[in-house]
Amino acid sequence: MAKNGKNDKASRPLARQLKQYVDPFRVDGTAEFHLKFHKTNEKGDLDKDSAKKIMDDNRDRLRDLQEKLYAQDNWSVLLIFQGMDAAGKDSAIEHVMSGINPQGCQVFSFKQPSSKELDHDFMWRTTKSVPERGRIGIFNRSYYEEVLVVRVHPDILEKQRIPRELVTKNIWSERFEDIAAFEKYLARNGTLILKFFLNASKEEQRQRFLDRLEEPAKNWKFSLADVSERKLWDKYQAAYQEILRHTSAEHAPWYVVPADHKWFARVVISSAIVSAMEKLDLHFPEVAKDTKEELKQVRDALEQEGRVVARVSKKQKVDGA
Amino acid sequence: MAKNGKNDKASRPLARQLKQYVDPFRVDGTAEFHLKFHKTNEKGDLDKDSAKKIMDDNRDRLRDLQEKLYAQDNWSVLLIFQGMDAAGKDSAIEHVMSGINPQGCQVFSFKQPSSKELDHDFMWRTTKSVPERGRIGIFNRSYYEEVLVVRVHPDILEKQRIPRELVTKNIWSERFEDIAAFEKYLARNGTLILKFFLNASKEEQRQRFLDRLEEPAKNWKFSLADVSERKLWDKYQAAYQEILRHTSAEHAPWYVVPADHKWFARVVISSAIVSAMEKLDLHFPEVAKDTKEELKQVRDALEQEGRVVARVSKKQKVDGA
Repeated sequence: MAKNGKNDKASRPLARQLKQYVDPFRVDGTAEFHLKFHKTNEKGDLDKDSAKKIMDDNRDRLRDLQEKLYAQDNWSVLLIFQGMDAAGKDSAIEHVMSGINPQGCQVFSFKQPSSKELDHDFMWRTTKSVPERGRIGIFNRSYYEEVLVVRVHPDILEKQRIPRELVTKNIWSERFEDIAAFEKYLARNGTLILKFFLNASKEEQRQRFLDRLEEPAKNWKFSLADVSERKLWDKYQAAYQEILRHTSAEHAPWYVVPADHKWFARVVISSAIVSAMEKLDLHFPEVAKDTKEELKQVRDALEQEGRVVARVSKKQKVDGA
Repeated sequence: MAKNGKNDKASRPLARQLKQYVDPFRVDGTAEFHLKFHKTNEKGDLDKDSAKKIMDDNRDRLRDLQEKLYAQDNWSVLLIFQGMDAAGKDSAIEHVMSGINPQGCQVFSFKQPSSKELDHDFMWRTTKSVPERGRIGIFNRSYYEEVLVVRVHPDILEKQRIPRELVTKNIWSERFEDIAAFEKYLARNGTLILKFFLNASKEEQRQRFLDRLEEPAKNWKFSLADVSERKLWDKYQAAYQEILRHTSAEHAPWYVVPADHKWFARVVISSAIVSAMEKLDLHFPEVAKDTKEELKQVRDALEQEGRVVARVSKKQKVDGA
């Protein structure tokens, strides 16, 4: 069916208003991608105060959009968060999604796979957790780890128990192709997919690691493994560049989110979500004419019952007095 | 990694021996496919007795191959069964798989989807159930129902809650593309996929329906809905032809199994499974040299313990006497 007229650009005030915080960071495969041209410390024309104002508005907008998403029950929304340690994934999810109805939103964190998960194809564990219609699903890390940490540490691939003759030099391009096909399939079946790469600098990571070591309340967030991963920084950057080049698409764009300023990162993320959800043309389902008639009868009956109760209780009062 | 020498054709005696019951029915996308050229009452040069002999041998072979599949724990096997009502899916699964270790084999029947399942993309419920490494998974009906019964009954598609603007005239070709991409992905990750279309004639179905109505013990297998589906026979045949044309591949072949003679259908199915699994070059994992040395020490210790026990019990006997 053709798209209806309501969905043209003129009727997307939010997308127009937030454009400047979204478009510069959106990668959809239409142009060549170079990670090095993306600044990590970008903050647009904003300061913390003006950012707070936008965030407050975006939270209201998101709550409203999610309510309609849930009621309409056709689309689902999948948000994928990737980034180096301390890039701010957890806190971005917390800040951007706070205030929305938790019944319509699920967060899944994908850490080291279990042995049961390793006994399956590499997307099995995430596919089980894709969001249902009407809901927002958040992946804190995702199947992209399979072309990131697994690529940077070839010994992990060894342990995946894939028949050896299938592990060829083509494995990464095959995985990109399989991931792209999977996302295209999801999109065709009604999932809005938005992918966020939180792009913080190596120096910013150093500062945040130091914070975690200095503040006792943040100690739990630090592990020695983080430091050994930090040594592989350049390899990870190269892996991210490959990912962005091979898996960015109109129906599943990446956003390279400048993440040195957490408050700006959150503006970009929430603006991208709000703008994309606005384009879905969500609305509360219309009640059919027959049902409307039935609802009217129900209301009449309830009102009638109320009048009877009022009369009886009035009579009781009179009798009792 | 390159395939090793062991895996060349000369070392596949089963595949050579069973070739005549497999190759004529195998569809792998290399030639144009016309369902009407496939006879439903084919029985090769076999009669029931010679078929029984082959089935007995195939069962032993399959048990042996499955044991290695399980021990090696790299490959998985996915067997998909499709066919019209009364084509013999259940009984084929029962006869072909009987005798193998149930711990390494799981059968899933996919009937009408639940509302939870409908809240997801159409392959979600089957993907959750794909076999783990080392195991054989059987789908009695599958995601192919989504391009069969859903295609023949457009009202089912209506109920799937897919956003309306995504339901275009391309939906069937998109579904074929998505299914093909999914199977390619599974194959790349170590799943052997074999798909069986049990091709029985309309007259044979009529006979089997009459049997079900006449024999009280078979009554439960009959439902009135089966008769209304029978009226759509030609539409189903056309849908199967489309499926075979668009989803047959070297790594995920279809077998058009002549199914008027159940005993011949079983020979074709079990021969196809045995031949394909033989090509995986399955073997018990070799124990590493270090481990061998450890195992030797364990054995020595167990034997030593036995000698001590023997001495003690001998001494006790002497003392007690």
